[in-house]
Amino acid sequence: MVFETSNPVRIAMVGGGPAAFIGPIHRMAAQLDGRTRIVAGAFSSDPERAEEGARVCGLAEDRGYADWRTMIAREAARPDGAEAVAIVTPNHLHLPVALAALEAGLHVISDKPATATLGEALQLREAVERSGLVYALTYTYTGYQMIRHARAMVKAGAIGDVRKCSVRYAQGWLSEPVEHSGNRQAAWRVDPEQAGAGGCIGDIGVHAFNLLEFVGGLEVESFVADLASLVPGRELDDDCNMLLRLTGGRPGVLTASQIATGERNDLELHVHGSKGSLAWRHEDPACLAVLWPGGRSETLRGGSPEIDGPSRLPTGHPEGFIEAFANIYADFAGAIRGDPDVIDGILPGIRAGVRSMQFVERAVSASKSRAGWTRLEE
Amino acid sequence: MVFETSNPVRIAMVGGGPAAFIGPIHRMAAQLDGRTRIVAGAFSSDPERAEEGARVCGLAEDRGYADWRTMIAREAARPDGAEAVAIVTPNHLHLPVALAALEAGLHVISDKPATATLGEALQLREAVERSGLVYALTYTYTGYQMIRHARAMVKAGAIGDVRKCSVRYAQGWLSEPVEHSGNRQAAWRVDPEQAGAGGCIGDIGVHAFNLLEFVGGLEVESFVADLASLVPGRELDDDCNMLLRLTGGRPGVLTASQIATGERNDLELHVHGSKGSLAWRHEDPACLAVLWPGGRSETLRGGSPEIDGPSRLPTGHPEGFIEAFANIYADFAGAIRGDPDVIDGILPGIRAGVRSMQFVERAVSASKSRAGWTRLEE
Amino acid sequence: MVFETSNPVRIAMVGGGPAAFIGPIHRMAAQLDGRTRIVAGAFSSDPERAEEGARVCGLAEDRGYADWRTMIAREAARPDGAEAVAIVTPNHLHLPVALAALEAGLHVISDKPATATLGEALQLREAVERSGLVYALTYTYTGYQMIRHARAMVKAGAIGDVRKCSVRYAQGWLSEPVEHSGNRQAAWRVDPEQAGAGGCIGDIGVHAFNLLEFVGGLEVESFVADLASLVPGRELDDDCNMLLRLTGGRPGVLTASQIATGERNDLELHVHGSKGSLAWRHEDPACLAVLWPGGRSETLRGGSPEIDGPSRLPTGHPEGFIEAFANIYADFAGAIRGDPDVIDGILPGIRAGVRSMQFVERAVSASKSRAGWTRLEE
Amino acid sequence: MVFETSNPVRIAMVGGGPAAFIGPIHRMAAQLDGRTRIVAGAFSSDPERAEEGARVCGLAEDRGYADWRTMIAREAARPDGAEAVAIVTPNHLHLPVALAALEAGLHVISDKPATATLGEALQLREAVERSGLVYALTYTYTGYQMIRHARAMVKAGAIGDVRKCSVRYAQGWLSEPVEHSGNRQAAWRVDPEQAGAGGCIGDIGVHAFNLLEFVGGLEVESFVADLASLVPGRELDDDCNMLLRLTGGRPGVLTASQIATGERNDLELHVHGSKGSLAWRHEDPACLAVLWPGGRSETLRGGSPEIDGPSRLPTGHPEGFIEAFANIYADFAGAIRGDPDVIDGILPGIRAGVRSMQFVERAVSASKSRAGWTRLEE
Repeated sequence: MVFETSNPVRIAMVGGGPAAFIGPIHRMAAQLDGRTRIVAGAFSSDPERAEEGARVCGLAEDRGYADWRTMIAREAARPDGAEAVAIVTPNHLHLPVALAALEAGLHVISDKPATATLGEALQLREAVERSGLVYALTYTYTGYQMIRHARAMVKAGAIGDVRKCSVRYAQGWLSEPVEHSGNRQAAWRVDPEQAGAGGCIGDIGVHAFNLLEFVGGLEVESFVADLASLVPGRELDDDCNMLLRLTGGRPGVLTASQIATGERNDLELHVHGSKGSLAWRHEDPACLAVLWPGGRSETLRGGSPEIDGPSRLPTGHPEGFIEAFANIYADFAGAIRGDPDVIDGILPGIRAGVRSMQFVERAVSASKSRAGWTRLEE
Repeated sequence: MVFETSNPVRIAMVGGGPAAFIGPIHRMAAQLDGRTRIVAGAFSSDPERAEEGARVCGLAEDRGYADWRTMIAREAARPDGAEAVAIVTPNHLHLPVALAALEAGLHVISDKPATATLGEALQLREAVERSGLVYALTYTYTGYQMIRHARAMVKAGAIGDVRKCSVRYAQGWLSEPVEHSGNRQAAWRVDPEQAGAGGCIGDIGVHAFNLLEFVGGLEVESFVADLASLVPGRELDDDCNMLLRLTGGRPGVLTASQIATGERNDLELHVHGSKGSLAWRHEDPACLAVLWPGGRSETLRGGSPEIDGPSRLPTGHPEGFIEAFANIYADFAGAIRGDPDVIDGILPGIRAGVRSMQFVERAVSASKSRAGWTRLEE
Repeated sequence: MVFETSNPVRIAMVGGGPAAFIGPIHRMAAQLDGRTRIVAGAFSSDPERAEEGARVCGLAEDRGYADWRTMIAREAARPDGAEAVAIVTPNHLHLPVALAALEAGLHVISDKPATATLGEALQLREAVERSGLVYALTYTYTGYQMIRHARAMVKAGAIGDVRKCSVRYAQGWLSEPVEHSGNRQAAWRVDPEQAGAGGCIGDIGVHAFNLLEFVGGLEVESFVADLASLVPGRELDDDCNMLLRLTGGRPGVLTASQIATGERNDLELHVHGSKGSLAWRHEDPACLAVLWPGGRSETLRGGSPEIDGPSRLPTGHPEGFIEAFANIYADFAGAIRGDPDVIDGILPGIRAGVRSMQFVERAVSASKSRAGWTRLEE
Repeated sequence: MVFETSNPVRIAMVGGGPAAFIGPIHRMAAQLDGRTRIVAGAFSSDPERAEEGARVCGLAEDRGYADWRTMIAREAARPDGAEAVAIVTPNHLHLPVALAALEAGLHVISDKPATATLGEALQLREAVERSGLVYALTYTYTGYQMIRHARAMVKAGAIGDVRKCSVRYAQGWLSEPVEHSGNRQAAWRVDPEQAGAGGCIGDIGVHAFNLLEFVGGLEVESFVADLASLVPGRELDDDCNMLLRLTGGRPGVLTASQIATGERNDLELHVHGSKGSLAWRHEDPACLAVLWPGGRSETLRGGSPEIDGPSRLPTGHPEGFIEAFANIYADFAGAIRGDPDVIDGILPGIRAGVRSMQFVERAVSASKSRAGWTRLEE
């Protein structure tokens, strides 16, 4: 991995002004290594906030825009203009911004979900495929070094044939009805108008789903879903439990909850193979446990050159969420520059985006009708 | 808790000779504290092995029997005879021995399952209820101090209203077809003739089921079950995943596996309440994690007088499996002697036995037919 | 390891009546496996309490004694009499009881310390060597399976040449002056009349010292000691920190504290070799961590046949303090019966007893004079 | 904490070109939040590498310099010039660069150690005090949120009177003589010409020393030091063990090792107070354990608004080494801008720098002469 370069990919950001939730994180991740650089921004449709955003991000005065369509047009025309667009807007804008960017010949990196609905996602898939450009979704957990190492071990057959995968994603911040006491992050997430059909499943269940397929190298074929709204008065699900059958009928389990009181962001993955098992927890993301028969388990630690190659940091210095996020931006840059080091399939793209939308829509409807076993794709 | 007494409950053991698997563990547990004492034994139907068993256990010569019916008759008649029978035979003998013991006025403590079939369990329930005697099942995990403390916290409302319970029981010792290479413990467990309808679910799934109801204070009302046989050639399930709906429709998840390669005996419980959550793992049984909102969690450690009262050991000295087992024998003795310290409902009895049998039989049949949501009791 | 036998070693216990602290633990450990059996007892010099002790322990009426000298004489004379004496009296009686037992041809197993003073220990060493009998000290931590496995790995050169050993023993129960509020265990430990010259160092520092030498296979040659009394008004040390130089000048560190508020009984050992390191903690005694270069560490878990041979319990069921204690009793029995499985040097004996007394006496005096580097043996 | 601003502190960096070890980390930390921005650089005395560095860092062409003296002069003269200098050169340049920067009215942030020798540090202290400018040393571990929280708890008396502090810093990367096989980081560290009098103690022992004083709120008054070179042929110490006496005679222990095979960067701190204890480990830096009497311990997790205020990341997303480093840069910016949120004493300055130099020089000389108790300041 190269962490600094004199030829960074130039990015224009849409949405994510300084006061936004996810914008600053994208900026930290994008610029951590210098592989990409934010050169333009349409941080807000409000001209004053747009200007403020540009100033805070240290952009040249003429590179801050109040209108994203104008930005895409002008940047695409400049010789030193943006080569890619980063989308950190509310969900309903994901599709139009992505389409406009691709249309203008710009690569796209987008916060998840790909779009607001499955229909839109299928439309976007077509556009991406037609364009030949790079399209990446920031499923951040796929950026952790040890998650990538786990995936590589599975692919290489190190744990034998994968027999079962389980994933558990536990948060507790919605165990009180905080949406009624000024928590903006909660308010839009529990509102079907803004969040879509899925609550917990759309917010974090999809991360669990994507991670399971990413590491396990298998696809969810069918499922039983049990979504519940446990905090009184809440319309969307805040707790989600699923039985899965993966490629070839292998069993799986996926649970996601936002009412697991006291839990913060505990994403936990188990992959059981015929020769060994892998276990990973987000609470200790730089560790990968490898369980072998006979009472002997291994712990692999990230940031060890022998295990995961070059690192930003000296051995034993923990990498966190921003670094995982930055790995995705770095691979996005690598893919654009044609860097041969970018591992095939490592970057979540439109295919993962479409599958996630399918997953949410079908799980929500199957749960509502208390359906039994249901196929993910019809 | 009183750990030594001059008036121990006198026990006659059926089955569990020195070379058996579970017999020695029952003996260690029964005699650890001196609350019960083994005074007679029918350790084997083979006279020589029966005699050897009696000698090893330090029994008087006339208290070793080759026939358990004879033992029950004679011990019940002696003034210093056994007051209770401990059953550690193969499953098909659980019912006849228990019935004979109750008939003779002797209390019963039995290894799980209560009986070989649900029909038998219902028959035994009637006999127990008629007898007015103490009947206990050694669901050992309920004996751990911190499990009992968790149960008490839930009952006292310390974590608010319970919203969700999950339990995961992972073993890996059957990930290879060891039943074909001389492993006797494996051989009978995978044989429908000897093990009954359930494999993994009957062997360890029931522990998970029982623990969830024991701590959570809720009952499983309905479920979807997905049982699988993942090692080629195996007839009974070796992996078991279930969605649950508990009392009042609360969601739950239960998974049990014997093909989780490299896992040893990792039983893990999560109880999520409206105010806090509890987490416990068998890999560190003396710890109970209590999660509160706001990034502050507590760890309670067993063997602290402030937390769980008198202990066998000085503070900070870990109690293990035998001690948990011994707690059940101690409470069995307490119940017989009318000790007011025995907590109501702490001792798993015939009711838990019947529920477990229902759980196994209905889950196996629902899974076979790929049924959706199914009620536990019809 | 054989866990049940028809020919147990017959033991007479001195001290340790039912209300005592350590007596019941010795009884649980001695009888857990049936390798030794308590057949006689002088549990108290008070005849009534002596009788009560005998009854509680289920002894024949004529095997409970109020006078230990009488007991030793009579038991030595009976054909079915005790073969060994277990000493669980206050420290000042350790020497006379041990001498009398050896004199009568009985083996001895004694709670630590060997004797009340170094002078006495040297006297006892002579008696033991002359007698040809088995003499064992219950340095319990040496009984843990993974401690024994660590020792074997070091001996076998698995981690290369040992370069450094550190041990940390942290308790917090004396962080308040509980000796003034009715805590009997505290009262005698902080009283120089009853505890001798060392407080914390004599109570738990010696365990740390013994463990370090036991696993590391090295001897403490010289040291700097810094003992402190941190709770106002306390005469003996309640905190103890030492720099060590081990065989060949290798560095070591030993700390022991009873004022580490909130700590329970956290004994922690690190052994660093030229090829790998070992780490063990009493809070998770069934695990041994083996650290290798390159970010790859192993965790070995006790109770795995592949790692530590036959076990009392099924795989993955944790063994605790009593089991470690029982391992020492089992080896004591094995040594007496000439069992070839008893590993050479595994049983702490009079040599370890003498070294521990030297360690305490010299550390206390060196610390008092604020001495620099001091040799352990003059 | 404000994480983005339209008025960042402008920094000129000396040393730390793209291929350097620590330079990129300083750049990531400095620019993570946008509180400081690198506007100029003298990354190398080699003009080509200097230019390359500037290009990689995205600097304007005229802001890359081959000579740091020129840079300081020109930047100090520009209206939009640097306000501060970041020093990431080899140690022998720390003093002259710092003096020149202060002389030119620029604030200074420097990698540790402050200077190459204690004499130089005293000289620098005078210059800093005279200048009235901000001078900060990047003792990175003081930047972790939970370390800062621990310090605040101690200051607020939450754990009562501090009675004892221990710190252990374990690395294993020098357990082989890697300095002879091309490891550049090892080569200069084991060379007295380049590293100065201390090896391990100067490289990592000072971090341990600084952390202990930072959190414990106490000063090391006297010590016994035992430094060793355990890898054959090595001149400087690679292992360092010390007994300490802190303010008022409280005991302390400090160990640091670079031959703890298999350890990566395990820095561990224990602070024992009269009411509770604190424990922190670098392997899990976002957790702070608080131990209370009675078997009840708490774990506080960073990134919880209730515990440590605003955070860069959503709750439960782990912060790593770069974030800790960035906290120091953010406070450096805050101190320059007069931000009232910067906690008094939170930023390690020249006083900490001087104490660390004293610590190394006196420990090395005391260990060489096998001295007993030695005062840190004469």
